Amino acid sequence: MNEQEHELDPWMLTEHGFDRDRLGRAESLFALANGHLGLRGNLDEGEPRGLSGTYLNGVYESYPLQYGERGFGFAEDGQAIVNVPDGKIIRLLVENEPVDVERGTLEHHTRSLDMRAGILRREMTWRSDYDHRVKVTSERLVSFVQRSVAAIAFEVEALDQPLRVALQSLLVANESIAEELNDPRAARGLVDVFEPQFKWSKDVRTVLAHTTQTSRLNVAAGMDHVIEVDGPYRVATDVDDDIGRVTISVRLQPGQKLRVIKMIAYHWSSRQTVYWLRDQVDASLENALGEGWGGLVEGQRRFLDDWWRRAEIEIDGDQRVQQSLRFALFHLLQASARIEGRPIAAKGLTGPGYDGHAFWDTETFVLPILTYLEPRSARDVLEWRASTLHLARERAVQFGLDGAMLPWRTIHGEECSGYWPAGLAAVHVNADIADAVRRYVQATGDEEFEKGGGLELLVETARLWNSLGAFDHVGRFRLPGVTGPDEYSAIVDDNVYTNLMAQTNLRAAARAAERHPAEAEALGVHAEDIAAWRNAASAMHVPYNEELGLHPQDATFLDHQQWDWESTTDDEYPLMLNHPYFTLYRRQVIKQADLVLALWLRGDAFTDEEKLRNFNYYESITVRDSSLSAGPQSIVAAEVGHMDLAWAYLREAAFTDIDDLHRNTHNGLHMASLAGVLLATVSGLGGVRDAGHVLTMRPRLPRQVQRLRFRLQIRNSDLRVTILPGEATYCVDGDPLELVHWGQKVTVDDDETILPIPPAPDLEPPKQPPGREPGAESAAAMPEDPTGNQEQFDPTGADGPADHP
Amino acid sequence: MNEQEHELDPWMLTEHGFDRDRLGRAESLFALANGHLGLRGNLDEGEPRGLSGTYLNGVYESYPLQYGERGFGFAEDGQAIVNVPDGKIIRLLVENEPVDVERGTLEHHTRSLDMRAGILRREMTWRSDYDHRVKVTSERLVSFVQRSVAAIAFEVEALDQPLRVALQSLLVANESIAEELNDPRAARGLVDVFEPQFKWSKDVRTVLAHTTQTSRLNVAAGMDHVIEVDGPYRVATDVDDDIGRVTISVRLQPGQKLRVIKMIAYHWSSRQTVYWLRDQVDASLENALGEGWGGLVEGQRRFLDDWWRRAEIEIDGDQRVQQSLRFALFHLLQASARIEGRPIAAKGLTGPGYDGHAFWDTETFVLPILTYLEPRSARDVLEWRASTLHLARERAVQFGLDGAMLPWRTIHGEECSGYWPAGLAAVHVNADIADAVRRYVQATGDEEFEKGGGLELLVETARLWNSLGAFDHVGRFRLPGVTGPDEYSAIVDDNVYTNLMAQTNLRAAARAAERHPAEAEALGVHAEDIAAWRNAASAMHVPYNEELGLHPQDATFLDHQQWDWESTTDDEYPLMLNHPYFTLYRRQVIKQADLVLALWLRGDAFTDEEKLRNFNYYESITVRDSSLSAGPQSIVAAEVGHMDLAWAYLREAAFTDIDDLHRNTHNGLHMASLAGVLLATVSGLGGVRDAGHVLTMRPRLPRQVQRLRFRLQIRNSDLRVTILPGEATYCVDGDPLELVHWGQKVTVDDDETILPIPPAPDLEPPKQPPGREPGAESAAAMPEDPTGNQEQFDPTGADGPADHP
Repeated sequence: MNEQEHELDPWMLTEHGFDRDRLGRAESLFALANGHLGLRGNLDEGEPRGLSGTYLNGVYESYPLQYGERGFGFAEDGQAIVNVPDGKIIRLLVENEPVDVERGTLEHHTRSLDMRAGILRREMTWRSDYDHRVKVTSERLVSFVQRSVAAIAFEVEALDQPLRVALQSLLVANESIAEELNDPRAARGLVDVFEPQFKWSKDVRTVLAHTTQTSRLNVAAGMDHVIEVDGPYRVATDVDDDIGRVTISVRLQPGQKLRVIKMIAYHWSSRQTVYWLRDQVDASLENALGEGWGGLVEGQRRFLDDWWRRAEIEIDGDQRVQQSLRFALFHLLQASARIEGRPIAAKGLTGPGYDGHAFWDTETFVLPILTYLEPRSARDVLEWRASTLHLARERAVQFGLDGAMLPWRTIHGEECSGYWPAGLAAVHVNADIADAVRRYVQATGDEEFEKGGGLELLVETARLWNSLGAFDHVGRFRLPGVTGPDEYSAIVDDNVYTNLMAQTNLRAAARAAERHPAEAEALGVHAEDIAAWRNAASAMHVPYNEELGLHPQDATFLDHQQWDWESTTDDEYPLMLNHPYFTLYRRQVIKQADLVLALWLRGDAFTDEEKLRNFNYYESITVRDSSLSAGPQSIVAAEVGHMDLAWAYLREAAFTDIDDLHRNTHNGLHMASLAGVLLATVSGLGGVRDAGHVLTMRPRLPRQVQRLRFRLQIRNSDLRVTILPGEATYCVDGDPLELVHWGQKVTVDDDETILPIPPAPDLEPPKQPPGREPGAESAAAMPEDPTGNQEQFDPTGADGPADHP
Repeated sequence: MNEQEHELDPWMLTEHGFDRDRLGRAESLFALANGHLGLRGNLDEGEPRGLSGTYLNGVYESYPLQYGERGFGFAEDGQAIVNVPDGKIIRLLVENEPVDVERGTLEHHTRSLDMRAGILRREMTWRSDYDHRVKVTSERLVSFVQRSVAAIAFEVEALDQPLRVALQSLLVANESIAEELNDPRAARGLVDVFEPQFKWSKDVRTVLAHTTQTSRLNVAAGMDHVIEVDGPYRVATDVDDDIGRVTISVRLQPGQKLRVIKMIAYHWSSRQTVYWLRDQVDASLENALGEGWGGLVEGQRRFLDDWWRRAEIEIDGDQRVQQSLRFALFHLLQASARIEGRPIAAKGLTGPGYDGHAFWDTETFVLPILTYLEPRSARDVLEWRASTLHLARERAVQFGLDGAMLPWRTIHGEECSGYWPAGLAAVHVNADIADAVRRYVQATGDEEFEKGGGLELLVETARLWNSLGAFDHVGRFRLPGVTGPDEYSAIVDDNVYTNLMAQTNLRAAARAAERHPAEAEALGVHAEDIAAWRNAASAMHVPYNEELGLHPQDATFLDHQQWDWESTTDDEYPLMLNHPYFTLYRRQVIKQADLVLALWLRGDAFTDEEKLRNFNYYESITVRDSSLSAGPQSIVAAEVGHMDLAWAYLREAAFTDIDDLHRNTHNGLHMASLAGVLLATVSGLGGVRDAGHVLTMRPRLPRQVQRLRFRLQIRNSDLRVTILPGEATYCVDGDPLELVHWGQKVTVDDDETILPIPPAPDLEPPKQPPGREPGAESAAAMPEDPTGNQEQFDPTGADGPADHP
């Protein structure tokens, strides 16, 4: 009973039994969302729970950030995603006994996430201590079609004997989200954030409206019900400030069922009054009732059929990896499908980790997937970034810089990083966003966006780089005092990744401004600006150590001492929870791919030999204390020819959440790691690169994989790729597509183009730091309870301090 | 009336009239202390006040430090000096009108600090709105002899007509220290920190005992009175938890006086109960009453006569500078005389600035003065450091380092810096302390200390450096990732000052361990440790830029862009209140002497040409946003021959507090700046250096000074130095002393040795950043009210964020 297995149906993630210790993880894995509304996979009855969660993208509370010693320009307020009124609770009382998985006997319990249907199903047979048995089934969905609506089909059946059953359907505001007494949110004053505005009920419908205390966002939430049961039943509806409740009491004969369809709707606004929002909720409930459960299920299926057609991906050789690829695609869809002007957070809408903030990982990891599968969502994200440019411009002014300085972490657009050396100093986020713009425009040819938000993002970030850097006395353009992706170094000069991405940014801005002179002029861009950006890009300094034949991560990185690997024990990882930044910054120890990320995203700047030497060297000092690292390491391992290693990292990315390798999946899924396994597959094994003007492909399979198939949408071309150990087959629906396969330029059309794949070189595998080999991580995974002062850390990100995803 | 002048009596600082705006400053300037007990120069009547303050060295409250994002090893608790029960208040009611300088008419008001007597005197003639006139005089002292005792002789005389007068003498705990509503201490929960333990009164004596809420320190305070008046009077004594009050009511005839001698005593302990402390307070009061006002005054004078004999200093040419030198010496004595196992805080006991913390400035600026004038106090400070080594060892272990890691800022020994890049990363504090040990032992020959706390400090800091640094592949010993004295750079490699001071530290430890092999062995020092320290010191890397002929402040400093001086306006200083660290760290802009400090303290490591070139260069980029900077800049200016500039910086140091150049004197006097003017005089104009084994002297006067005389105690030699424009005269009482005058070795005895002084070279004066010339600062001084978030800054250090003194 008490074991949990994920069966190998590649379309279905299933849990058997009930395991209290893995409850939080399961709530994240089984979360349902549509990018706008998210429900964690909490049990219907609400308790026990790891963490209750119902989220609306963009609904947050703000609070003042405290500092031991504050400095000018430190972020002033934090923002945290909040648990909105919870409408997914349905409780049962059977002959006076609450149906509680921790009481009585759980004879049968399964939950399955059906990724083709977009439905979470639960089946339970429960016996009370008095031998009253019921069978409960529920199906839950968050509609992709009606973005404000979730629905639950809940059924209870009496077994063996007649039973008096009470079903209570709840809508609860300001619920206590976790059982632990030391809820860190309490310390931040983030409990009871919803001030009641009004309550309303009619028949079996209740609507509650609230306003958040500090951020002053209005939220209205409502529920309505369809009750299906033969014979008479009693029903009572109660409503108070923070609770709506419908209670149905019925006597069920053996084999008889009570079935309740619960419709839930949310609307929120910073502008509209709660009265208008209430009308919207009532309207959404009417629409949902009009569709009915069947209609919602059908819409869900239609929507997903379309998605899976585009997001086709097949890997032969490892069914768990195949399942993980579908899981990743499903959750990326759930995080993005209906964001419409809002960000994709690091955890999507699956949990409160990282306070619900969006980071650079959205643009660098998630968008390269969405751009080729669901470009509309990629555009939505970039439009959201563009909509925050006014705040980023203010920040640039405050920092004496030109253009815009986009935030390291935010929900609403303001910088929220509470530790600037690993926060706002990581200015590469600006180039990462610009690169996502460049990629999106190149992949879609979306001129309208390019002329609008795209151009503005490119121009403002180029201006930032131009003012951040300077030419030195030998004419090199340099970027001092920044922090690269690796957070075990900070405030360094000429971080290679940052410099190369800034170079791309400057060039992309110059090109876009030239392509759209009128729009550029409207943004105040003059010919000399464009020339300046080009000059800075051409002169961009990329440090190289001739003696060692290596690119240093930054100007002085290779001067630093090695980490003392020998005296570091497994339980000291992640290092940042056991060693001060003071120590980490002074050593050659890397949290996550940084120079290796440059090898991937700016591969054109390195020779093949440089890539191999750099990769091997950095591999020996990278500890992967970030879930962002395995994906890029897999991609570059594949490129340089370490195929076994590429496969090992791909699997690590694949199981980061499913197997909870970082021991913090309970706070939400790692969107960038989900994207990571897809990137490791498509960019790693598939060898796809898009830094230039045409796609280049250097596919190659590891011995563990017999066949890989995937599909990419590029402008009007629907590219299908099939990779076998010795050959690749390309085929395009739509416009013929030019691409480069292993250096050979080909034009692919609807006839299959079959091209040979060169065999992998015979290489000595590189060494990782002791104990940090891929696959070793799950043994020495992150401790969930960092010593002493966990409550001071990121309230819900057990990754710990400043551990950006 | 409303003007304030400091008359040019070099022994007396006098204020005429009353100026509300300068009240806080006057409270600091007129503070009385003995290193153990400190009273701010608050008006007798307690109000109006800038900031009420009564301090006991070592009595602090602790509170949790908050962080936007916490990291491993961040300081967990802050410590702040607290206002202990205030026993200096004496209030008057004349015919029902309170004698309040802001009511009625202040016909006459002067206060003078008599630096020979150690007494603060006040004279006031006050007329009520009903034309009742009184003359009030008070004298106040904090006894240098009876360290727990302060006393006030208070006199009120009726003028013109008979007057009914009530005098109220108070002892108040948990008083509100300032009038502003937004007292930042409130935000930290540092109000009402004293929990009442008991109260007691008998006749005209009251005693209160309290315990601090979090730090759990017991404090007992008491007052007693001698009442002198002809004829009958009424007296009433009241006592409650937080107040003791004695009220004397009397009818005074014209010309008749009421004179009250108020004795105040304090005892505190973390160990003794309040009951024992109460007994000590009663005993101290009895002793003080036994001495009487006259006895206390006489003891004070004796103590000071002895001090001024040793601390003789005379400068001809500028009476205000002469006065400032005495003022500096008097306040350094007040900060240090009776510390006995406690630190000297950055503000002494004159105000709550910097939370009452001690920093490196004590060892680097204050001890070089005390070592040659009052070596017992220098030893006291170093013994205090040694007594905190157990905490520093724990910190080193936490940081994976050997030896001890002494705190950047503390009261009790724990690290309290709330922003680590400009706090604990400034590890040079360890070498600064070691250098103070080296200096003290060299100047005194105190073997007992050298074998004890001295050796332990040297050994533990040498161990720290040896584990902090490492040999690079070409055999250089390097210290990456530290912060030097200049806080506009942080976390840099091979800061020249730090490396050179660490070198001194390693060598001093090696020498001391070899001199005391048994004691070294007891500390676990082996021959190979000593060899390792010597190796590291010999191989210490000192970066040098051949191309520019300059020493970079750190490895990459000279690669950075210049500050944009042209677009920086005067009101942007101090830069850290208007520019983020992100910007400051990336530029060549210097808050305070750093490389220039190395030129002074490690002058042996530079040629004269290097000194001149380096000084001129760093002069052009140093903004002196720290009060620590003018002194060292004066010293090195004098050494390289910029005599006008040396004089200008000397005067800036001289008037930092008296003229409130940094606009924060209200929070307390800058001890290091007071030491700075003395160092600028003795080490600058006097040219004294003590980095080697004998004193070297390169005296030279600026044209503004006709003669300089000072005295230094070196072991058993009392050296008297007289410097004239063309010659220096040396003379020693006691053992003959070997010294080096302008490169010439001489042995000085009790005959006068007269030696010529070479003329200053003819040099082009160096340029400072625009608007940052010495003397310009008072115009563009620090704004007292940094925009927006002052209340978030250091609670009382208006210098602002992380602005270490």
